[in-house]
Amino acid sequence: MPVVDLDRFDFLYARRVRGLRSSAARDLMAMLSRPGIISLAGGFPDTSAFGSEALKRIAAAVADDSARALQYGPTGGLEEIKDIIMDVMAAEGTPARQEDVFLTTGAQQGLDLIGRVFLDEGDAVICEAPTYVGALNAFSSYRPRILHVPMDRHGMDVAAAAEAIQRARRQKVAVKFIYTVPNFQNPAGVTLSGERRRQLLELAREHDLIIVEDNPYGVLRFDGEAPPTISSLEQASGELERVVYLGTFSKIFAPGVRLGWVHAQQGILHKVNVGKQAADLCSSNLSQMLIVAYFRSGEWRGYIRRLLKVYRERRDAMLDALAEFMPEEVYWTHPDGGFFVWVTLPEYLDATAMLPQAIQRNIAYVPGEGFYADGAGKNCMRLNFSFVEPEKIRRGIELLSEVIKERMEFRDKLERGSRARARRKERTQR
Amino acid sequence: MPVVDLDRFDFLYARRVRGLRSSAARDLMAMLSRPGIISLAGGFPDTSAFGSEALKRIAAAVADDSARALQYGPTGGLEEIKDIIMDVMAAEGTPARQEDVFLTTGAQQGLDLIGRVFLDEGDAVICEAPTYVGALNAFSSYRPRILHVPMDRHGMDVAAAAEAIQRARRQKVAVKFIYTVPNFQNPAGVTLSGERRRQLLELAREHDLIIVEDNPYGVLRFDGEAPPTISSLEQASGELERVVYLGTFSKIFAPGVRLGWVHAQQGILHKVNVGKQAADLCSSNLSQMLIVAYFRSGEWRGYIRRLLKVYRERRDAMLDALAEFMPEEVYWTHPDGGFFVWVTLPEYLDATAMLPQAIQRNIAYVPGEGFYADGAGKNCMRLNFSFVEPEKIRRGIELLSEVIKERMEFRDKLERGSRARARRKERTQR
Repeated sequence: MPVVDLDRFDFLYARRVRGLRSSAARDLMAMLSRPGIISLAGGFPDTSAFGSEALKRIAAAVADDSARALQYGPTGGLEEIKDIIMDVMAAEGTPARQEDVFLTTGAQQGLDLIGRVFLDEGDAVICEAPTYVGALNAFSSYRPRILHVPMDRHGMDVAAAAEAIQRARRQKVAVKFIYTVPNFQNPAGVTLSGERRRQLLELAREHDLIIVEDNPYGVLRFDGEAPPTISSLEQASGELERVVYLGTFSKIFAPGVRLGWVHAQQGILHKVNVGKQAADLCSSNLSQMLIVAYFRSGEWRGYIRRLLKVYRERRDAMLDALAEFMPEEVYWTHPDGGFFVWVTLPEYLDATAMLPQAIQRNIAYVPGEGFYADGAGKNCMRLNFSFVEPEKIRRGIELLSEVIKERMEFRDKLERGSRARARRKERTQR
Repeated sequence: MPVVDLDRFDFLYARRVRGLRSSAARDLMAMLSRPGIISLAGGFPDTSAFGSEALKRIAAAVADDSARALQYGPTGGLEEIKDIIMDVMAAEGTPARQEDVFLTTGAQQGLDLIGRVFLDEGDAVICEAPTYVGALNAFSSYRPRILHVPMDRHGMDVAAAAEAIQRARRQKVAVKFIYTVPNFQNPAGVTLSGERRRQLLELAREHDLIIVEDNPYGVLRFDGEAPPTISSLEQASGELERVVYLGTFSKIFAPGVRLGWVHAQQGILHKVNVGKQAADLCSSNLSQMLIVAYFRSGEWRGYIRRLLKVYRERRDAMLDALAEFMPEEVYWTHPDGGFFVWVTLPEYLDATAMLPQAIQRNIAYVPGEGFYADGAGKNCMRLNFSFVEPEKIRRGIELLSEVIKERMEFRDKLERGSRARARRKERTQR
């Protein structure tokens, strides 16, 4: 087989393919399976807690109806899994009707279908800064403008979002929706406050926009009281109109089944349905039936309590280690749940440039740059605590802090060097 | 919950959503579960032949490695399933290297990703007439022009394809690829001859285009010798360059696992990889491991022999019944494999308009219109034989022929009536 010219068909590719970025987190995966490396770069749940016996039991139950499990299913999912989803949403205080639930191949497909339904080239989307890299990937297939809105510890700055919308409208740019991960955001670990959720809904009403509420981590709360979902706020006012809620089984059951869902009003779901037929016809009956077999037993509530215990311990280990090892100029967020801590280094440090050195020292993270569409976030990094044992987290943060300190000292020396050079130059010039 | 205005957000939807059509075949599904109805409208394999015990056995094997089965996997699929895919492609005489195989969520996702990688709005795609409705759905997300090329019993008319390409080029339209289902085409049941496959590859070379060879039914051949795949023809000439081959486990194992693949050169797969990350991150590890567990045993070859026996019998039942019951002016194709027979009615009959009457008589089919992007095919229908027992097929064709005859007689009466009116008018005017 001769060597292939990778650019051979550049003239035939669509413009969007140049815009699509390969996810840094996923491209790293191959490298990170090296033994000895401590990877805080993943976004994985801990699937070891589920157990082979439990999987064997539910698989055997599903196999009794093998012809159906192996067959094509309805585009929007089996009715019985929609009932399960209603239970799961109720656990977060969000009402749902069976007909407003639409099954997707992971929440990632939900993002892709929402992009497909709403985005023409050049349309604008309001996103947090930073935002979920998978959302940027999904939306970018449809070539929109991403308008990043800053966050603080209470989540997206709603006043800044309002300004961004007004600025876009003045420039005749159509803003289609506001995208938010309200709970323990990926990557920043920040939660949108109840107050801001109400304001965001008001803002969307004022400008007649959609809100896409992407909520994979909602039930994974370790501390404090959960603010109401934006969808539940809208429904409490007697309507289901502009809030499109995305959920997933990846974090409460397993990513390996590739199942998530969209909860939205009928008009939007009709368009999503057309998109789903084009994208992959339907999701796996087999996966759906496995979930139904497991969730019907009610065991999932106990399973999530087990997960919470594991994840809380790991979150604590990470926060403790950060406090113990990191130099003073480094800051990080304090998530009440979810999978991630967001670390901000001094502005002069570049986390992307630092990564190879870190990997050489057996510690990996995701550089912050990928979570922005505009090249910001260079001095930031996302750390994952859900997939790594506490002792490894502690050792990993220690290694990471060493790499950071070396970089800071290196810069310090450079600065002193250049100051010395500047002084010498001054003296020579005198 | 108040009544929802379905068009409430029309001003926010992307232009493509109006272009996307809901698949007629799938929309019918709900209606067709009515007891007593004989549906020749599906496109389903018969999954009852697989059996609960076999599924239980492979599921138990997979559950032993539950943490991995339930986790996220690599974007392009696990290495061990790529080895299985190489075996399956070898069974059709198509060489494949592990690195040229990329796993997708069914072949439908392969079509979507190919559209995403190659199609800007207004680009042209060469398709058979009729063509697979799922391909039309997938491509239409990217708003191309579909250039239909007529078929005869040897498949796509290559000279007509050449003319269509030249015409498009004269109009400054960029033709990106030729799409073909070469074996027992869905919907027409026709197979592209070996001679035409060579000509089509030559044509693509001449115009420097991609060929998308969509081959879900290739191993489901009942009669005759298989012509070489277009991919194997290209590889026999020492290169893997412009042929993108799509395969699926839906027909040789089960649609319920939602797994297919793309076989192409590295440059194209790199773009497909970026698209897959955006679309659904990765396919199900669990599904992949089930397939690996089953296919490694080699049992699949025996399973396909069992399927062939079942499907051949059903195909024969359908062809016999068509010959026995259909009126003279009706024509149909004689597939050597696959799932479908294509029926052409007299031009004055409209299969879409006739469908409600047929369903009332307990017989369903897919009207031909959906398999064309240009409104042609109104007097045609697709009949499925893979999913229905022989006696039901016979009864179904009998019912269908009655509906068709009634329509023909109705038209006959109308014609005689109008001729009589014309004569009366003539007499009055004299």
